[in-house]
Amino acid sequence: MQFQLHGIDVNSKARAGSITTGHGTIETPIFMPVGTAASVKTVHQRELEHDINADIILGNTYHLYLRPTTSVLEKAGGLHKFMNWQRPILTDSGGYQVYSLSDNRKITEKGVKFKSHIDGSSHFFSPEYAMDIQRSIGADIIMAFDECTPYPCEYNYAKNSMHLTHRWLKRCVEHLEKNPPLYGYKQTLFPIVQGSTFKDLREQSAEFIATINAEGNAIGGLSVGEPVEEMYAMTEVVCNILPKDKPRYLMGVGTPVNILENITLGIDMFDCVMPTRNARNGMLFTAYGTINIKNKKWENDFSPLDEMDITYVDTAYSKAYVRHLFKSNEYLAKQITSIHNLGFYLWLVREARKHILAGDFRAWKDKMVKQMDVRL
Amino acid sequence: MQFQLHGIDVNSKARAGSITTGHGTIETPIFMPVGTAASVKTVHQRELEHDINADIILGNTYHLYLRPTTSVLEKAGGLHKFMNWQRPILTDSGGYQVYSLSDNRKITEKGVKFKSHIDGSSHFFSPEYAMDIQRSIGADIIMAFDECTPYPCEYNYAKNSMHLTHRWLKRCVEHLEKNPPLYGYKQTLFPIVQGSTFKDLREQSAEFIATINAEGNAIGGLSVGEPVEEMYAMTEVVCNILPKDKPRYLMGVGTPVNILENITLGIDMFDCVMPTRNARNGMLFTAYGTINIKNKKWENDFSPLDEMDITYVDTAYSKAYVRHLFKSNEYLAKQITSIHNLGFYLWLVREARKHILAGDFRAWKDKMVKQMDVRL
Repeated sequence: MQFQLHGIDVNSKARAGSITTGHGTIETPIFMPVGTAASVKTVHQRELEHDINADIILGNTYHLYLRPTTSVLEKAGGLHKFMNWQRPILTDSGGYQVYSLSDNRKITEKGVKFKSHIDGSSHFFSPEYAMDIQRSIGADIIMAFDECTPYPCEYNYAKNSMHLTHRWLKRCVEHLEKNPPLYGYKQTLFPIVQGSTFKDLREQSAEFIATINAEGNAIGGLSVGEPVEEMYAMTEVVCNILPKDKPRYLMGVGTPVNILENITLGIDMFDCVMPTRNARNGMLFTAYGTINIKNKKWENDFSPLDEMDITYVDTAYSKAYVRHLFKSNEYLAKQITSIHNLGFYLWLVREARKHILAGDFRAWKDKMVKQMDVRL
Repeated sequence: MQFQLHGIDVNSKARAGSITTGHGTIETPIFMPVGTAASVKTVHQRELEHDINADIILGNTYHLYLRPTTSVLEKAGGLHKFMNWQRPILTDSGGYQVYSLSDNRKITEKGVKFKSHIDGSSHFFSPEYAMDIQRSIGADIIMAFDECTPYPCEYNYAKNSMHLTHRWLKRCVEHLEKNPPLYGYKQTLFPIVQGSTFKDLREQSAEFIATINAEGNAIGGLSVGEPVEEMYAMTEVVCNILPKDKPRYLMGVGTPVNILENITLGIDMFDCVMPTRNARNGMLFTAYGTINIKNKKWENDFSPLDEMDITYVDTAYSKAYVRHLFKSNEYLAKQITSIHNLGFYLWLVREARKHILAGDFRAWKDKMVKQMDVRL
């Protein structure tokens, strides 16, 4: 993996770069649509490529391990071939999902024992096994196995957990060195900074992660319920320490405003279920605010779904039509809004990149943040 | 509406023709995907046009009347504009759906009183009102308001019902003469032959319908549970009487084999929910038989969904991948199989047309009927 910086904003820490992987180049800042179980919900791969212009998508190790299983994925020749997606893929480590099971998991130094949400069967992920699974999946960028602390979190728990994450990271690195990739292209490991919302822990963690000298670094444990000011404060602390010549990935973030604010602080990569999950609930993101398309007010509004026409659905369908589809529980409702929202998120990061390179990012960002913070 | 016959098979009554409407030309024999509530379930209009190659789709008057309502459709300028579908549309009269409500409807000479399946509210359809609603929807081909008898049906009930349908037809015709179309293009009324599975009633009804001299004619009340032999026998009786220079539409039929057998008997138009409904349950139709894609046997089958590659999904996705999507309850599962099945149905009628024009329809049909009658 190569990372090139093409420009840094003079009035902020926003960066425009590019990441080159065995499956092509990703222009940063980038948003990665979430394809949990080998599918970005309601969206065809062709639409991701041609309409949404997704440079990279994310898969979830926990889900892929349970279904279709690593055995099927290995026989398929990896996730790219299995789902017919030839552009880059990033997988998380399974950690976050496993911790979300709360009552159904137990964490020890060795790893995490958990019960499947599908059939209650028992499973065990160690840092080593999480790497093996990610070798079987074959994503271009893979994540270290970490513990993601909840919010709020006691200081001592956060501190011990951070150290556990650091020890696990070393095990991940060593295991990958001994176990090469399976499909003839490189997989790049991103370590994860933890430390909850404690400035000193975040600093310690970022300093430790920086010493690993990985090709890219991630920030985990944010966007878990903390106030946005705390999220931004932690991002700022960590970005000041993580190496400038490596891409920085803020996991699980966020709203369009969150994304712009974190780009301002030096983040290059994002992922979040928000554009797709909210789409399925009838919520549209636009450059001029959010729309609840189920509202009665759109019943006779035959104007385009979004005048900006970022993806073809924006002018192919009217607000009244999409409202009707939601009211009638038609599948097409969710398909249309998912394409719209993902198209908008990808447009937003591409616009951010343009403005970083043009040197007017800060003013554009301030305008957009105000403009998007409206309910239409 | 103009109907042109381009060829009749020498060894059967199969016909190749074309129907020209205000929204373009339909090559017959044709299959019409069902878009009940202004959407062919799980399929984008763009996919219907470019991937499936649907010349015409069907809308359901009962559903469209309840949602989005005729008021919304009129403000939109009709269903074509509302759903952004510029090719021809056919609407049923609402009769069939209303009768399906069984306990929630009452039939009198005046019309049918029924309760909405959505909120239980009371409504009344007369032949005149069914025409008004279809004027508001604005389909290119509209259907007479008829009573669709169940199977089995007592002779006297079927006879009285048939006469009621005939009297209602006259009211439909008169009402349409007094109430012109709303959107500047012609709407063509198709009367419907009834008579259950009684040969003499079917003959009487077909003779009566023929006297109306409509631009096209339909056969209703079949594919409601009767053995296929009875369906074919009734189609044959009716096709021998209905005018040869007008298109014949067999409502609600059917399996790929049903379609080929009825083309053989002189039918030009079909509609059925089967390709889309079965697709959503994981059943694929192919030229070599049906596939239940949920079966364990496909778990590690990475061959294309359908080697024939009729629509792009057939080679874009493997059997193992689509099985995984069903097992994981991913929306994309239904989207892929719906495109496949509709693409296959449209391929089948286009192939039939080619073979009719080439003069070898009968042999091709016999081969296909045998070939498709297999579970893969």
